[in-house]
Amino acid sequence: MENKLAKWGFNNGDLKEKSLLSIRSVLETIMENLKEENERKSVIHLGRGDPSAIPCFRTSPVAEDALFSAVRSAKFNGYAPAVGIYSARRSIAEYISHDIPHQLSPDDVFLTPGANHAIEVVMAVLARPGANILLPKPGYPFYEARAAVSNVEVRHFDLLPEKGWEVDLESLESLADDNTIAIVIINPGNPCGNVFTSEHLQEIAETAKKLGILVIADEVYSHLCFGSKPFVPMGVFGSITPILTLGSLSKRWIIPGWRLGWIAMVDPSGILKKSGFAESLQSYLDYGANPATIIQGAVPHILEKTTKDFFSNINNILREAVEVFITKIQEIPCFTCPYKPDGAMSVMFKLNLSFLEGINDDMDFCTKLVHEESVIILPGMVVGLKDWLRLTFAIEPSILEEGLERIKAFCLRRSSS
Amino acid sequence: MENKLAKWGFNNGDLKEKSLLSIRSVLETIMENLKEENERKSVIHLGRGDPSAIPCFRTSPVAEDALFSAVRSAKFNGYAPAVGIYSARRSIAEYISHDIPHQLSPDDVFLTPGANHAIEVVMAVLARPGANILLPKPGYPFYEARAAVSNVEVRHFDLLPEKGWEVDLESLESLADDNTIAIVIINPGNPCGNVFTSEHLQEIAETAKKLGILVIADEVYSHLCFGSKPFVPMGVFGSITPILTLGSLSKRWIIPGWRLGWIAMVDPSGILKKSGFAESLQSYLDYGANPATIIQGAVPHILEKTTKDFFSNINNILREAVEVFITKIQEIPCFTCPYKPDGAMSVMFKLNLSFLEGINDDMDFCTKLVHEESVIILPGMVVGLKDWLRLTFAIEPSILEEGLERIKAFCLRRSSS
Repeated sequence: MENKLAKWGFNNGDLKEKSLLSIRSVLETIMENLKEENERKSVIHLGRGDPSAIPCFRTSPVAEDALFSAVRSAKFNGYAPAVGIYSARRSIAEYISHDIPHQLSPDDVFLTPGANHAIEVVMAVLARPGANILLPKPGYPFYEARAAVSNVEVRHFDLLPEKGWEVDLESLESLADDNTIAIVIINPGNPCGNVFTSEHLQEIAETAKKLGILVIADEVYSHLCFGSKPFVPMGVFGSITPILTLGSLSKRWIIPGWRLGWIAMVDPSGILKKSGFAESLQSYLDYGANPATIIQGAVPHILEKTTKDFFSNINNILREAVEVFITKIQEIPCFTCPYKPDGAMSVMFKLNLSFLEGINDDMDFCTKLVHEESVIILPGMVVGLKDWLRLTFAIEPSILEEGLERIKAFCLRRSSS
Repeated sequence: MENKLAKWGFNNGDLKEKSLLSIRSVLETIMENLKEENERKSVIHLGRGDPSAIPCFRTSPVAEDALFSAVRSAKFNGYAPAVGIYSARRSIAEYISHDIPHQLSPDDVFLTPGANHAIEVVMAVLARPGANILLPKPGYPFYEARAAVSNVEVRHFDLLPEKGWEVDLESLESLADDNTIAIVIINPGNPCGNVFTSEHLQEIAETAKKLGILVIADEVYSHLCFGSKPFVPMGVFGSITPILTLGSLSKRWIIPGWRLGWIAMVDPSGILKKSGFAESLQSYLDYGANPATIIQGAVPHILEKTTKDFFSNINNILREAVEVFITKIQEIPCFTCPYKPDGAMSVMFKLNLSFLEGINDDMDFCTKLVHEESVIILPGMVVGLKDWLRLTFAIEPSILEEGLERIKAFCLRRSSS
């Protein structure tokens, strides 16, 4: 009998069918337009939040030593509990509790292979027929994708560029209804590079309370703040409404390839436990992917021993890069940047197509840019804003400057004026 | 407004609702019956295939060195492609190709965070409305669970204890219909510890061809063969019908906590690529969990440099443990073991309840055993055979002997004769 696979065919993944794009796949598509290696300039990658390969962004020796010790101990070669090993959960609970007025217990923390998987888990466990979730626009498209997989309807609220990318709280209330399960907040902001004030976070928590929903606080870029505003965890307002904090070693320690993320319940009222949410989370993790135990074993050492120097050095480089960005971007007439980033690793700026000839949209811009200048940036449509661009400034400032020079040259060649 | 979570409640995970049990959760439930630490004997864990904590099963220094090098290089701290890094895929392609008459390319290999996640991915990508899959009984319950999540109907075929746990090929054909997508074969066998002959594997491949389905060959225990039968990969018969080989570093290198598995397409006819299966797999991985890049970076070194001594030493310990098991089990009247294991890490034996007083079933047996003797074994119902038991012999032979002595004492105390 002929193999039935040939007859059936495959839908190439539900996600592509639903026109959902991942940042990774769009970057790969764009990079297909690079010229052959011997015909092109050196590649400058301003498309993704992963500077780990850049020498000045190398992770802390403390993190490397922690992993060495975990390997040498031979204590972390085996299976871990589905929720993660106790010592790692305890140290993450302490790490988070340090900055909020609530003491988390190890039982409040669940480990995942990266924060992306935390998004998958939370979405799957919250899903129920007819449910909807409030997501920021622009945002991080992994949320939209996992909502689609879990059949959760997405309702977008705007982040307002003219208000420092704050949440449009008024529209929020009109979007929500009885089937709204949660609101997602990304702070420090991806893709906008903004940092929310304590006052604004409190307003969000109070709005969530009014709507009877929980807040999913994506704090993957926590503590990567280099402007005047400090990082305030959403968990500070956990007594207003239950908070699920998503975090990771990926960005602050610049080891996204170690795949160690977490979900922490900041819920002094105990709603998440009483409702069965915590148990459902554990049950989902029991049949899902878990982070490598050997990495889990390194977590306490990493969280407790990394020096302040390492963190301040990274923030200094990011601050310097933003200065370069802001100076250079003003020299390019077809761009408008409404906000100078003070956190995270990326910035959004608007592409004014009327200033350019022969460019149809943001995707077309990025495709032609990579072909001519070997500079990679992300079309805004992937993160929800068509004809905007997302640039990652987590790179050596001198290389960022070179990249922006090339972008400027590209734009001037195509100037319509 | 009161938080809606409290009103909604949670179903504690679809899986528990569907009475699907994970090995991990059942073992945790059983272990709740251990006495307090100061009142009990030392715990002997014969319940799970993870001997990594036992000194004589410590992983190869080659694997540890490989991970040290990966960390030191600082080349593997970043995000990997969704399918895995090229060098790891290439070395796995070579590793598999060594034992089969087909040359795999790196493009035929997809990395996953452990073979469990490989099961999730394959099940999700193969799923379609009305589809069913043929699973072995006894088997590995992760398949049943992931089939349930992906709404794939499960049809069980028997492994025949009186025929060395071979597949009941006759019943197989009557189970399959136009909606059957695949058959799963676990070789070397989990939970039975059997090794299939080349002839039997060929018969399975030919039956699959007749049915027009693909074979999912779970070879997580590959090369862990210590009897007279060699390990023959299912991929040897890839020209008969397409094979998906699932593999992992977990068992052969005894590092299940490193979470590095793979899916390899052995498909010289190219059906899996032409049908879009390979592209769907990539798309699913793009939005799913990925193995830690730092572990991926260690893969070539691990696969290419591990010495034969390491492997033969592990197989020698397993062989010795099986001899201990077979000798001791014959001293316990309430057990019947139909097959002396020659592969993998576990064995199935029947519990004859008529020989015992006050034991209701296999779960009851394990629960009371752990309470009285601090010995943990797995009730057969979890793997599909009620009133059988699964024992993992991957432990120091002297401790296995002590464990079996305690089991014997427990049984004799409850003897009905």
